[in-house]
Amino acid sequence: MAYTIDWSGDPAVVLIDQTALPQREEYLRCETVPELIAAIRRLAVRGAPALGVAGALGVALAMRTSADPAADIAALRAARPTAVNLAWGVDRAAALVPGGSDAVLAEALAIRDEDVASSASMAAYGSELVTELVGGDPVLLTHCNTGGLACVTGGTALGVAIALHRAGRLREVIASETRPLLQGARLTAWELGRAGVPYRIAADGAGPSLMARGLVDAVIVGADRICANGDVVNKIGTYAHALGAARAGIPFLVVAPESTVDPRTACGADVHIEDRPGAEVLELAGSPIAPAGSVAVNPAFDVTPADLVTAIVTDRRVIQLSRGGNLPGVPLGRLR
Amino acid sequence: MAYTIDWSGDPAVVLIDQTALPQREEYLRCETVPELIAAIRRLAVRGAPALGVAGALGVALAMRTSADPAADIAALRAARPTAVNLAWGVDRAAALVPGGSDAVLAEALAIRDEDVASSASMAAYGSELVTELVGGDPVLLTHCNTGGLACVTGGTALGVAIALHRAGRLREVIASETRPLLQGARLTAWELGRAGVPYRIAADGAGPSLMARGLVDAVIVGADRICANGDVVNKIGTYAHALGAARAGIPFLVVAPESTVDPRTACGADVHIEDRPGAEVLELAGSPIAPAGSVAVNPAFDVTPADLVTAIVTDRRVIQLSRGGNLPGVPLGRLR
Repeated sequence: MAYTIDWSGDPAVVLIDQTALPQREEYLRCETVPELIAAIRRLAVRGAPALGVAGALGVALAMRTSADPAADIAALRAARPTAVNLAWGVDRAAALVPGGSDAVLAEALAIRDEDVASSASMAAYGSELVTELVGGDPVLLTHCNTGGLACVTGGTALGVAIALHRAGRLREVIASETRPLLQGARLTAWELGRAGVPYRIAADGAGPSLMARGLVDAVIVGADRICANGDVVNKIGTYAHALGAARAGIPFLVVAPESTVDPRTACGADVHIEDRPGAEVLELAGSPIAPAGSVAVNPAFDVTPADLVTAIVTDRRVIQLSRGGNLPGVPLGRLR
Repeated sequence: MAYTIDWSGDPAVVLIDQTALPQREEYLRCETVPELIAAIRRLAVRGAPALGVAGALGVALAMRTSADPAADIAALRAARPTAVNLAWGVDRAAALVPGGSDAVLAEALAIRDEDVASSASMAAYGSELVTELVGGDPVLLTHCNTGGLACVTGGTALGVAIALHRAGRLREVIASETRPLLQGARLTAWELGRAGVPYRIAADGAGPSLMARGLVDAVIVGADRICANGDVVNKIGTYAHALGAARAGIPFLVVAPESTVDPRTACGADVHIEDRPGAEVLELAGSPIAPAGSVAVNPAFDVTPADLVTAIVTDRRVIQLSRGGNLPGVPLGRLR
């Protein structure tokens, strides 16, 4: 698979249009910053790491194509106010503006390459751990999309599964569909198919039962934030799978870059859970599911308490919580 | 609400077309047995108790309208081979055939009336228990559809919630949408709206997290089968909610008629879990969600172990498992 987002020297920022997946694989060429902003706004590119790279490459694009680069950079930075990685990528590249457009581009490409390296390192640490814990022929259940589409390439939890497949150490992935937005059924299934990984899709509610029946060997998910005590904030539905894994006695593994670890947040109870629009639950592809006038409660994330987490895998270390490990106690290791 | 299914003296069997809900409320008049069979086959009427009544009323219709009643009765009995209640209702009414068409109709109407009485009794036992356990202003989370649409009127778990609302002892119902077929979002929401009960719809994966955040006071569900040891077989997704309730320390209540108790099945491990077609997961309203060529794992039911069940409520008794009660130890009481 080509990179989810990349630079083209024409110049342009090229990205796969995730809104067209899985039905159509289309690449967008954004030749101006306003085109890139439009793509970000309509979620053609999504996922925290990918948005960081989009922000940085967008600054490089502004330096080469904009009549007023400063204005375009400011507009890009504000394209999705809640996506902190977008602003982070913009700021890091924009800090090089005094050095000229080549310096900005070099920094943006460095951010891209660092993300690729981070994914590779998580795949190395994570695949080793999975084999150690559940052997060389496991069925892994995953939730939401944590693959190359959320990054530049590779991914977090799904990157581990794909690395295991390539090493001949994976039987199958069960992709939890991930209501309401179905990132599992749409995006994860598409990535697994592309990578030749055997997979099946399951309704979210089926996960814990499949675990109880002995049909899953481990659960492997990403994280939006990891609190200082090891509590994990991730896509809604993650916690239910963690409960299922604990009851079934199988490992529950969290894979995320070191930048996801937030030592300033003590525990999950300190995290504000964003409520998303009810229409995401009440409609599908624009058609109503529920009776007119219905209201939904639609939290975007949930908190998995640290005691349900077997291990956290980052690009720099493995913290085995179930064996007494904790975040402050495990030093950063090398990038692999 | 009128009965989900009833007799009309014209003669005809009249039923609400559940495939049109929640967008349209339409009643079907089946004036011949083949029309009724077609309605059953396309799931215009569903739910074990409702199918039992459909079978019995169908025999009465055959006696009054068929050129060959015996052939029509046999065809009706086989309309949905896995629906044991359909055959049960057919057989019970057909046993009166030697007594003539009036005797058959009287038996069919008796079956209808027994179902109405059973629902009323579960509502009485169950609403009393809920108030005892969680007070007079609870938020109840329910899964799938267990209301009047699955019966003649009233229902099991949802009937309890509606009875509590009518008594001013309910704050709100959270209806779990129930993927893949969305009975919660479609049918439960429609029934709650009709009854004036405040409700919100949630994705299945959100349930345990809402419980952990203190936003749910008790979970109340139906059952397809209750094993001798108290294990509960119910719609896929139920077990995840039971895990969530146990972790949150809130009651998990099961409401089902006494006929659901199956003393010949020792425990959940003895139950064969039906796998349904993958298309239910992979498509929505005929449109594909997942990539072409995807496969789904789509178990129809799951097993909730007895240790996660606070109490089982039937039309004849309350078995408080969490207080040491068990099915053999609690005698049948009166129908209320």
